[in-house]
Formats: sequence, C-alpha cells, structure tokens
Amino acid sequence: MLTIRRAGANGAEEISREAALEILPRGDAPLWFHFDSPAEDELRFLQENFHIHHLTIEDIVNQNQRPKIEPFEDYVYLAVHLLRREARWQIEPSELDLLIGRGWLISVYYGNISELIDEAKLKQNLLPALGRGADFLLYTLLDLVVDGYFPILDAFEEDIDALEDRLLLRARRGDMNRLLSLKRSLMHVRRAVTPQREILNQLARHDFPFARPESLVYFRDVYDHLIRMAEEIDSLRETLSNVLEIHLASTSNQLNATMKRLTAYGTIFVVITAIAGIYGMNFKFMPELEWRYGYFAVLGVMAAISLGLFVYFKKRGDL
Amino acid sequence: MLTIRRAGANGAEEISREAALEILPRGDAPLWFHFDSPAEDELRFLQENFHIHHLTIEDIVNQNQRPKIEPFEDYVYLAVHLLRREARWQIEPSELDLLIGRGWLISVYYGNISELIDEAKLKQNLLPALGRGADFLLYTLLDLVVDGYFPILDAFEEDIDALEDRLLLRARRGDMNRLLSLKRSLMHVRRAVTPQREILNQLARHDFPFARPESLVYFRDVYDHLIRMAEEIDSLRETLSNVLEIHLASTSNQLNATMKRLTAYGTIFVVITAIAGIYGMNFKFMPELEWRYGYFAVLGVMAAISLGLFVYFKKRGDL
Amino acid sequence: MLTIRRAGANGAEEISREAALEILPRGDAPLWFHFDSPAEDELRFLQENFHIHHLTIEDIVNQNQRPKIEPFEDYVYLAVHLLRREARWQIEPSELDLLIGRGWLISVYYGNISELIDEAKLKQNLLPALGRGADFLLYTLLDLVVDGYFPILDAFEEDIDALEDRLLLRARRGDMNRLLSLKRSLMHVRRAVTPQREILNQLARHDFPFARPESLVYFRDVYDHLIRMAEEIDSLRETLSNVLEIHLASTSNQLNATMKRLTAYGTIFVVITAIAGIYGMNFKFMPELEWRYGYFAVLGVMAAISLGLFVYFKKRGDL
Amino acid sequence: MLTIRRAGANGAEEISREAALEILPRGDAPLWFHFDSPAEDELRFLQENFHIHHLTIEDIVNQNQRPKIEPFEDYVYLAVHLLRREARWQIEPSELDLLIGRGWLISVYYGNISELIDEAKLKQNLLPALGRGADFLLYTLLDLVVDGYFPILDAFEEDIDALEDRLLLRARRGDMNRLLSLKRSLMHVRRAVTPQREILNQLARHDFPFARPESLVYFRDVYDHLIRMAEEIDSLRETLSNVLEIHLASTSNQLNATMKRLTAYGTIFVVITAIAGIYGMNFKFMPELEWRYGYFAVLGVMAAISLGLFVYFKKRGDL
Amino acid sequence: MLTIRRAGANGAEEISREAALEILPRGDAPLWFHFDSPAEDELRFLQENFHIHHLTIEDIVNQNQRPKIEPFEDYVYLAVHLLRREARWQIEPSELDLLIGRGWLISVYYGNISELIDEAKLKQNLLPALGRGADFLLYTLLDLVVDGYFPILDAFEEDIDALEDRLLLRARRGDMNRLLSLKRSLMHVRRAVTPQREILNQLARHDFPFARPESLVYFRDVYDHLIRMAEEIDSLRETLSNVLEIHLASTSNQLNATMKRLTAYGTIFVVITAIAGIYGMNFKFMPELEWRYGYFAVLGVMAAISLGLFVYFKKRGDL
Repeated sequence: MLTIRRAGANGAEEISREAALEILPRGDAPLWFHFDSPAEDELRFLQENFHIHHLTIEDIVNQNQRPKIEPFEDYVYLAVHLLRREARWQIEPSELDLLIGRGWLISVYYGNISELIDEAKLKQNLLPALGRGADFLLYTLLDLVVDGYFPILDAFEEDIDALEDRLLLRARRGDMNRLLSLKRSLMHVRRAVTPQREILNQLARHDFPFARPESLVYFRDVYDHLIRMAEEIDSLRETLSNVLEIHLASTSNQLNATMKRLTAYGTIFVVITAIAGIYGMNFKFMPELEWRYGYFAVLGVMAAISLGLFVYFKKRGDL
Repeated sequence: MLTIRRAGANGAEEISREAALEILPRGDAPLWFHFDSPAEDELRFLQENFHIHHLTIEDIVNQNQRPKIEPFEDYVYLAVHLLRREARWQIEPSELDLLIGRGWLISVYYGNISELIDEAKLKQNLLPALGRGADFLLYTLLDLVVDGYFPILDAFEEDIDALEDRLLLRARRGDMNRLLSLKRSLMHVRRAVTPQREILNQLARHDFPFARPESLVYFRDVYDHLIRMAEEIDSLRETLSNVLEIHLASTSNQLNATMKRLTAYGTIFVVITAIAGIYGMNFKFMPELEWRYGYFAVLGVMAAISLGLFVYFKKRGDL
Repeated sequence: MLTIRRAGANGAEEISREAALEILPRGDAPLWFHFDSPAEDELRFLQENFHIHHLTIEDIVNQNQRPKIEPFEDYVYLAVHLLRREARWQIEPSELDLLIGRGWLISVYYGNISELIDEAKLKQNLLPALGRGADFLLYTLLDLVVDGYFPILDAFEEDIDALEDRLLLRARRGDMNRLLSLKRSLMHVRRAVTPQREILNQLARHDFPFARPESLVYFRDVYDHLIRMAEEIDSLRETLSNVLEIHLASTSNQLNATMKRLTAYGTIFVVITAIAGIYGMNFKFMPELEWRYGYFAVLGVMAAISLGLFVYFKKRGDL
Repeated sequence: MLTIRRAGANGAEEISREAALEILPRGDAPLWFHFDSPAEDELRFLQENFHIHHLTIEDIVNQNQRPKIEPFEDYVYLAVHLLRREARWQIEPSELDLLIGRGWLISVYYGNISELIDEAKLKQNLLPALGRGADFLLYTLLDLVVDGYFPILDAFEEDIDALEDRLLLRARRGDMNRLLSLKRSLMHVRRAVTPQREILNQLARHDFPFARPESLVYFRDVYDHLIRMAEEIDSLRETLSNVLEIHLASTSNQLNATMKRLTAYGTIFVVITAIAGIYGMNFKFMPELEWRYGYFAVLGVMAAISLGLFVYFKKRGDL
Repeated sequence: MLTIRRAGANGAEEISREAALEILPRGDAPLWFHFDSPAEDELRFLQENFHIHHLTIEDIVNQNQRPKIEPFEDYVYLAVHLLRREARWQIEPSELDLLIGRGWLISVYYGNISELIDEAKLKQNLLPALGRGADFLLYTLLDLVVDGYFPILDAFEEDIDALEDRLLLRARRGDMNRLLSLKRSLMHVRRAVTPQREILNQLARHDFPFARPESLVYFRDVYDHLIRMAEEIDSLRETLSNVLEIHLASTSNQLNATMKRLTAYGTIFVVITAIAGIYGMNFKFMPELEWRYGYFAVLGVMAAISLGLFVYFKKRGDL
C-alpha cells in the first residue's frame, strides 16, 4: 500500500499518485512516499518514476540486507534495522528501506510498522518534519528507529544484572544457556548498531547533495546516540565475560573448599574406623581387650583424636 | 580444452580459435575464452595471443594461490576460490583463474567446473551476461562463485547448532574433536572469503580500465554479499568459542556438584561404618553390648544420624 | 543560578546581566557565565543571546552525554565529566558543559560544583585565568577536572593492591564480587577518560577560532595528563586480569595439592583398615590369631606400612 | 672471501677486483660482489669503493639485525633472514645482507651459504638472473631465501598435526613442553617472516631508483609468497591454541567422568561395608544373627543393593 | 650543579656561564649544558637565557612524565627514561630531560647520573660527539640510554627462563607471585620503551630544524634498537602467558592423573575391606567360617581380586 504525503502551507496532506507525479519535477514541496509491503505494481511505479537501479529494487525485495548506505546518481539508498524483542532473549531485526532524492523521501517496510509510525508520532514528529524538508524527515525517521533501541538495551541490562546476581551466588541449571542466549542476542543487536553508526557518520560528515548543510548537525546527533549505544553494548558484553570468568573462578574456589572439607572429615572418620578395626581383630592375645576400662580408654582416644584433628583443620581453615 | 564464445546479435555462439583471433583486435564483440584444464599448447596459445606475463602463467599452473587481484598493463588477473564440501566437516577450495582485458574474459579451471557453469546457468546467466560485456560476465561469474558459499555456510550453521545442543546437555566422546574440525574448516572458509572481499572492494572502488563505471555498482553488490558472509563467519567462530567456554564452565559446575554429593554420601556412610566399627571391637567390658536393646538403640542412632545429615545436606543444596 | 564575571584591570568582578550584554558585542573583556542548575528562563537567556543551537540546549538539559566536543558556527560545545567516588567501589560521573565563543566562556553544571570551583580555587586559579582570556579559563577548568581524577585513580590502585594481596594469599568470600565491582568502576572511569583524551587532542591540534595559538600548548599539557591516566587505567585493568588469572592458577594448584594429600592419607588409613578387617574375620581356623605375639606383629606391620607409605609420599612431595 | 661476477655476452664470469673497479663507473654490465665472511680489509674495500655508510657497515658486522630495508643516497640496504632447522623444534635465523646500487649488487653472509647458493642454483638461477640486471638478481636471491622457508613450515605442520593427535587422545608426559617449544619456534619464524613481508611490500610498491618498473611485478610475487606464509603461520598458531584449549576441555571432561565413577563405585562398596560393619557388632542381643538364613539374607540384600545402585548409576551415565 | 662544555678545536673544554652566554648568540661552537639536580637559581638561569616555556620547566621539575617529545618554537623538549634494576624483579624508571636548540643541548637529571655519563664515556663518546654537533650529542645520549636497557632485558630473559623451567616441572609456593611481579615489571619496561620508540621515529622521520639531515640516519639506528627491544618485550610477555597457560594445563593433567590413581587404589582396598567386613559379621550360621581353609581361600580371593584390578587399572593407564 502506498501513501503519499505532501508538506503544504497548512500541514501535510495525503495526495494521489497523479498529483505527486505532477509536483515531483517542480520540486516545490517535499514529498514522502511510504510503501507498506509494496505490491508488484507499486514497485514498478517506484522503479519507473524515480530511476531506481534494479539492484536497489532487489535489495528492497530481498529484505535480508545488513544496514548500509549506497549513493546512486539520483538518490541515496539506506537500509536500516528496526529491532523487535520477540521473546525474552530473542531479538528480531526487520529492515526499513529509505531512499532520499532531491525533494522526496521514499520509505519501504514489509509488515506492520505501526510501532514506528503511529498516529501520534505522525502528527507530532513526522508530518512537521516533512514540512522542514526531506532530509529533516530522514533524520526524524532515523531518530525514531534509534530511540527504539534504548528500551531493548535497558531490558538487556536488567536481565544481565539479574543473571549476574544468580551466577555469582548460586547458579541454577540453565543459567549457562541463558548466558549464551544473551551473548548471542547482544551480538545481533551489535550487528544492527555498528554498521548503522557508520551510516550516520557518513551522513553527518560528507554532505550528500540531498542533505542541506544545516541538517548535518542533526545526523551527528543520531550518530552520537549510536556511539553511546555501541559503547554500552560493548560494556554489556564485557560484563557477561566478566561474570562468566568470575563464576568459573568462584566455582573453582568452592571446589577447592569442598575438597578440603572432604579431606578433613574423611581423615577424622577414617582414623576412628581404623582404630575400631584394630580392636575388632580376633587375636587370642590382645592385652588391651582385657583391661577394665580399655573400651572407655579407646573411646576417649578416638574422641581426643577427632577433636584434635577438628581443631587442627579448623585452624588451617579447611573446615 | 578451450571453448570460445562470442556475443552476437542473436545470442552467444561458439566460435573457432581462428575466428576469435580475427575478432580480437577489432574488439567489436565481447569474447569469452574458457580453458578447462588447459594442455601445454593451449597455455602457449594463451601466452602468445594475450601478452600474459609468465608469472601469471605460473600462478595459473601452480594452482595454490590465495585469492588475489593483480593489475597488469593489458589485463587484470584474478584468482578466486570455489569451495566444495568434500566430507561432513571438510572444505576443499579449488582455484578459478580469471583474466579480463579490453573486450575479452579468460577463465581457467582445472577439473570439473560443471557445478559452477552448467547448461542451465550458461543459458540463463552467463551467455546473456556476455552480451552485456566482458566486465558484466566477470561480475556474473563472481556472483555465482559467491552464491556457492551460502549453502556451505548454512550447513555450518546447522552443524554448529547441533553440536552446541549436544555439548551443553551431554557431551559425547568425540564432540571435542568435532568442534576442532569445525573451527578449522571455518578457518579455511574465512581464508577464502576475506581476501576475496578485498578483491571485490578494489573492483568496486577503483575503476580498472576494463570495467565500465556503470558496472561498479554490480561489483559492490557482490562485495556486500562477502561482507555479510565474513560477518556470519565471525559470528559462527564466536559461537564456537562461546560454546566451548560455556561447556567448560558447565563441566566445572557439574564437577563441583559431583564432589559435593560425594562428600555428602561419603560422610553419611563413613559415620555409620565408624559407629559399627566401635561396637565391633572385642573389648571384654563394653557395657552397651550387654544392654537388652543396645543393638536397636545403635541402629536407631545410625538412622537418626543418617537422616539428620541427609536433611542437612539437602538443605545446603549439596544433594 | 547565573553568575557573570568579568576580567577587569584590577581582578575579576561579578557583573549584572545587563552589563554583560553590553560588553559582549564590544568583546573588550573576557566574560565568564556560570549557570548553576539553570532555571527555564536562564536557559532561554542563554539561547537568545548566544545563538546556541537547540540541540546543544537539549544536550545540556538531558545531562547524559558522553564526553564530546562539537564545533558550531559561533561557539564550540564541550561536555566533560567530573568523577565523584560515591561509595568505596562506586564512581558516579557528573556532566560539566562548557561553551566557548569569541571572548566568552559559559559553564553549566547541575548540582553542587563546590568541589571543583570553591573560593580558594576561584581566587587562585580561575579568576586570574579569566584575566588571560576565555581560552585560558577553559584550560584551567579542564585542568581542574582532570586533576580531580588522580585521587580516584590512586584510591583504585590501593584497593587493587589490597585485593591482590588477599586473593593471592587467602581469598575471602566476596573478594570475587569485589573484583568484579572494581573492574566495572574502572570501566566507568575509562569511559570518562578515553573520549576526553580525544577532546583534548582536538583542542591541542586543530586551532579552533576561539583558541589562540599560544594556548594550544596548555591543552597539550592536559592531553598529556589524560594519556598518562589512560595508560594507568589500562595497566590497572591488566593487573586485575592478571590477579584473577593467577588466583585461578593458584586455586588449581592448591586443589591438586589437596587431592594428593587426600590420596596419600587415604591410602595409609585404608590399608590399616583393610588389614584390621582381615583379622576381624570370624573364620574358625585362622592360625595367626592363635599366635602369642600375632597382635603385636600385626600392629608392627601396620606401623611399618604406614611409615613406609608416609616416607614414600613425603619423598614424592605429595604430603 | 670476495667473489666478483660480471654478466657478459656469453654468461657470467668471475673477474678481479681491479677489473670490477674499472667497470663500476661505466655501469655497462651488472656486477655481483659476494662477500663470504668478509675479512677486515674486504670490509674496507667495500666501504671505500661504494660509499657505504658506517652504520650499515656496523649492521653488517653485528649480524643481529631484524629484517629491514633502509634506503641510502647511493644504495638500498636490506637485511633478510635465512632460517635453518637446527634441531627438531629449534629454528636458527642467520642474516644475509644485501646492498643494491645502480648496476651492482653486494651480498654479505657470515658462514657457509652453500645451501642457498650452490653450484646448481648458480648455474640455473643466479648467473642468468645477473644477466638480466642487478634488481633481477636481487629478486632471485630473495625468492631463494623465501623458498627455503616452505620446508620448515611444512615440517611444523606435520609436527603440530602429530602433537594434536596425541594431545587429544592420550597426552604423554612432555607433550606440554613440546607444545611450548613449538609455539616459541613458530614465534621465531613469524619474527623473520613478518618484517620481510613489509620489506617486499616496499620493494613492490615504491620504485626505488635501482629497481626498474618491470621488475616490480617480481617483487610482488615474492611478497605474495610471504603473505601466504604469514597466514599459514597464523593459522598454525591458532591451531596450537585450539589444541591446548580443547585438551584442557577434554581433561576437564575426563576428570568429571572419573569423579562420577569414583562416586558410583565408592557408594556401592561403602554401603556393603556399612552393612557388614553393622552385623559385625558384638551386641549380646541381635536377633538377625540367630536366624538360620540371616547370613544369606544379608548377602542377598548386599547383592541386591549393589545391583540396584549399579543399574541406577549406569542409567544416569555415571559408570 | 651546572656543567657547561664547549666543543673546541682541540677537544671539549668546560667553560663558565659567562663565556657560554657570550658564545650562544654567535652559535659558532656547539654547547652542552648539563644540569645535575638543578637548584632554583639554575632553573631560573635556564628559563631566562633559553626562552624555555614554563610548562617545560614544570615538566622538568615534576619528574613524573611519560617519555615524550614536544617541539616548541626555539627548541625541542624530550623526556626519556633511564631504567635501573632496584631489586631482582623491580624496575625503577628515572627521567632524563633533554632540550635541543640551534647549536646547544641541555640535559637535566635529578640524582646520580654516573652510570650513564661517567669519565670513560665522556672521553670516548660524549665529548667527541659534542664536537660533531648538538644533534649528534643528542643521538649519542639517546644511544647510551637505550643501550642501558639491554642488560635489563637480558636479566629478564634469564629470570623468565628459570621460572619457566620450575613452573613446568614442579612449581614452588611463591612462583605464581614471582610470575605476577615479572609481568608487572615487564609492563613497566614496556611503558618506557614504547613511547620512546615513537619519539625516535619522529626524530628520524620529520626533520626538526635543529637536526641536520645527515643525522637522521643515526636516530633511525636507535629507533631500530627500540623496535627490536619492543618485539623482544612482547615475546617475553607472550612467553609468560604461555608458561602460565601450560602450567595450568599440566596442573589440570596431574589432577586428573591423581584422581585416577585415587579411584584405582581406593577401589582395590575398598573391595578388600568389604570382603573382610562380610566375614567379620557375627551370624550364627555362616558355613564358610567353618571350612578348614576358608580363611586362606578368602585371602586368596582378596589377592586375586587385588591383582586383577591392579592389572586392569595398569592397562587402562590409570596407575
């Protein structure tokens, strides 16, 4: 479905294809063509009226691009990624294609873009932006896309904090797998953010013929957001590595402590058993057995040895 | 075996060496010379008629080049790698040599190239491409080569997913070796992909005299594919590292749990044995032995201690 | 709250807004506007009289910038970070915004800046600096900010040294978490220091129109401090990694030693118990049992075996 | 010992110092001066007639240079490394010094260079190369040096493969040290190869006045060899790391399996011992002892428990 | 203390401040001002007569600079580090400040510089160098500083070799801490060497107005030394990492072997104990007990089982 909007004197209004094609060559008002899951004939309309290279059309249709920016003679093509949190630790990127030319912006999205472009945002952000030019609309859209990343990163941060607390205190079965999932999702986010940062960097530095110099500062603003985001992602990744490393160290420590305790208790009881075994032997002549208080003496010796060892191990810190 | 094809008005047709040598200096139709495991005299034909540097001939004959691009005065030499999956975890690269000059393209392959250039692809892709020029034929061949990588990467991804599931749940003997094999094959793939990415980057950026400006965007398209592939390889490698790391962590955890269980059960039985040992001693005077219910009392004490320890360890999470 | 200071013949003096606005266009005396948690109308005053871009205003109000430098047409905007040690291992960055134009400097801080700009520093450093120009005041402020990092780094170094001693000798419960906290705080410090280093590098290399050439050497001085600091941070981080690594290695060593001791003692007592068990059997015909000195012979054998094993294990270094 | 060779119409011939000094200024025939462990006076001859900087002379005499290239006004100085495999895992680099000027090449080697320059290679490669110019002789020498690396790398690859097989199946005492030796030797090789790669890169890219443009392609050829070699070294190093990592993981796995088996068997026998201990107690009144088939019943219970535990552990995969 | 030396026709001679100030503007003889722990008035003399920036003076006085090079209008300021081995594994850097202008060199050192500049070196190296120009004296001083690093690195290499041998065979208590100390000291050395390498690189590449083109080759010579040194440091660091890694692997191996031995011996004795326990039971009716050779039969069974298990474990490689 194709929606065409024109920035006019009193706000933006939807116009028909014919009206748009009439305005286009005059270039006296910025136009925004939004294709929602375009049909075959809409793509043809796109290709014929805007001289879009067929490789760009392929990129749009295939929808598995990494974020990129590609300047062509008459327009610049951008593929950016929206991120959606499908499940708790699953991030699904979806592609938004943007084409900007002199006086017009084309956006193409397959599926329901309502979370990016809803009534409220249209009124408050996008339509006023259209009024300030196609490049400003581009900035506004990119800004909205990047703003959508922040809640995802925040959720990550929370999850990682929770996981960290659990892993350092008492790891549960499955926490390791969760850590792996988190690492992977984070990698997906990074693969969306990093190239987009480069895109914004290019937009902010080189002036493309379709971006006015006074708009560059806005792209730099989005670029700053992405830098901060990339840093946060790196720091989250490092936290995950740290947590794993320290979990390993603490497991290793606990193992050591367990082994020491095992040695200590084992030694105590094994000594008692050995002594008891000795006096359980059936030799004819074992003088101690005849003693009146032999039994109590041995019990006493056992208790004394046990206590002695216990204190000894306690002092060494083994128990 | 040498096959020469000419792009004519009505499709491409095979022509003889003599006809080709006649057309070559006129340059009015793109020519494609495909050498299939060339014989001595065919290499001589190549060298004499195209002024190919003898180092290039050596590179073609030796066949153990890494992917590279080398511009010469009259032509550009490219060595690219086809990848074939020999066995489950074994990747075999084979070299395809490409030489492009003004109006002609030479391809040399030792062995059976049918999987790259079969009847169907010839008709549908390659011969039409020849009609659009030698540089477009070069693009089409490179595109086919790179497209051949994707199923290999997909198979890798599947294998790694399966290995990951097994390693995290219950590692089998040999899984470690499998992981090593996978890492190595992946390294081979990367060593094919990374330099090829650079080759395409050069093709897409600098305009070689034999590539028309309007073809650059096509090389950039293949370049994009290779970037995405290289990223995927890196992510697979990271996954393998993660899996190994987390497998180690979980092994370490299990070891800890096993040790704790060992301590716990051991302590319980060792106490029972020690007590039994004490009452197995043969002292003359052991008052408990005379008691009517001494035996049952001791059994009771043993049961009580066992239960007490059991509950204690259960609570601590050791059992 | 807005405080305006002017560098005059006899020291700096506070002046009113009106006086400042009069001096501003003449540019005959450097002016310093310090906004302390500016109110709405003060921000408006800022925006109206200095042609500050509204994105800069947003950056100032939002207060969650990473350190950055942004040149605009009429001014350069800098966001730098003060670091405050909230708790033992918790570093809280707070933002100081600086804007420098031709002949004036604006500083904005939310909260109590008394630790950076107190009476003493005002008299001794800042007001004299104002007398030497806005760029020199900028240098002085940056120098004070960076000087404030050193005690924090020193405290880190002490903490890490203490932790290291403990971890290598006898790790206490919680030391691992402390190590994690330290690593994280250090990361926060690094995230403040590294971009600031780049800012100072830019200030020292490119001459911004508002910085006189003879001031560049001062910015280079602060830049040197930040380089040294960044190196120290890196070295502290490496120390932490080393400590962890060596703690792991030493834990692993101790574990090994414990296991060897366990094997050794266990073997000794298990042999005694087995021998005792044999002579505790109730067979009718066991000749040794009848012997006069059988019991003592067995005791002797036990002692001999124990001693033999003890010496053997001692020699092997297992005990 | 100094050998001077001149490229003449009918092959190269040895000439005297005087003849050489006569030809040198005319520059009508390429000359090759080879110094074999030069004596004091030969070095003086070198310095006086070729205006060699005394730092170069020092570099030649000291013989502990890392590979480097240094352009001087009248000549270019290269230090390259021959590699010799002294013992199984020991690589000894030896330095070959090369100086190339307009029309002449000087080579200096201390010791026996016969493995690089023997009769066969002289006739087949070097003397014909001299006929094609000093720069071509330089290329031929460098090519021979680099070709000498390949058998060493191949031997490494074999050793590493053998070590890998052993480490993953059943590590022998000393394999770890072997791994360390291999890593170190590999590092030595890398320290020879990496700077040489840079040297060849410079030779192939910048045209030194003494290298004709048509020779550059030959240097690029050697450069390609060195790139491939450097990649192979990196891949061998990574293999060694992988082997170590996976050896650790598999050791850790085996440890875990051993502990589980220990727990399992230990539990079975400890239960039997505890039961036997109970019926070994000497209480007066123990009804089971009086039973006719008490003994067999207990034996049966023991067998049943053992079997039960055995099956249980087998099912859990502990045995 | 200030010593001024002038290069004259017949060697260098010490001159007075007044004579120096007279020569300075004429610039007809290179002058060397060496300040040994300069007093207040000597620093003033420095500042007044050489137009030294007060930041440089501060850098000289503070003495905690990292090595750096800073060009000023009339001179270039260098801070380099001497290294002294205080204790076995403790490296103490001390700063040498060098200022070079047109025709003069200033060196400032706090403390006893006799190990760098003693009578012998003065006569043999430094004074002749002064005769060849201030830049040549600078080179000679830097060369001496860098030459002083080599014995330290050699000592490191020896220590690391010794530590390595011990760690791989039989680690002693404290070896781990030694490794940590070594790593740290090495880091200190690297922090001295790496920036100095950059300094020499700058000296060798850019021609500062105070360095004659023919001197550049000398600075390049020192630069080469520093490169080699930096490589050696990196290789030592890698060796330390390797040693630690392999020590861990071998500890882990030993642990595994110990556990296997424990399982094996434990199993043997626990079986004996269990059998003995069975025949120690006091059942009324135990037919074996009545047998004539029951005891010997059981002893035989025990021996047979022990031997069988022993052979079995030996074959599996557990013992």
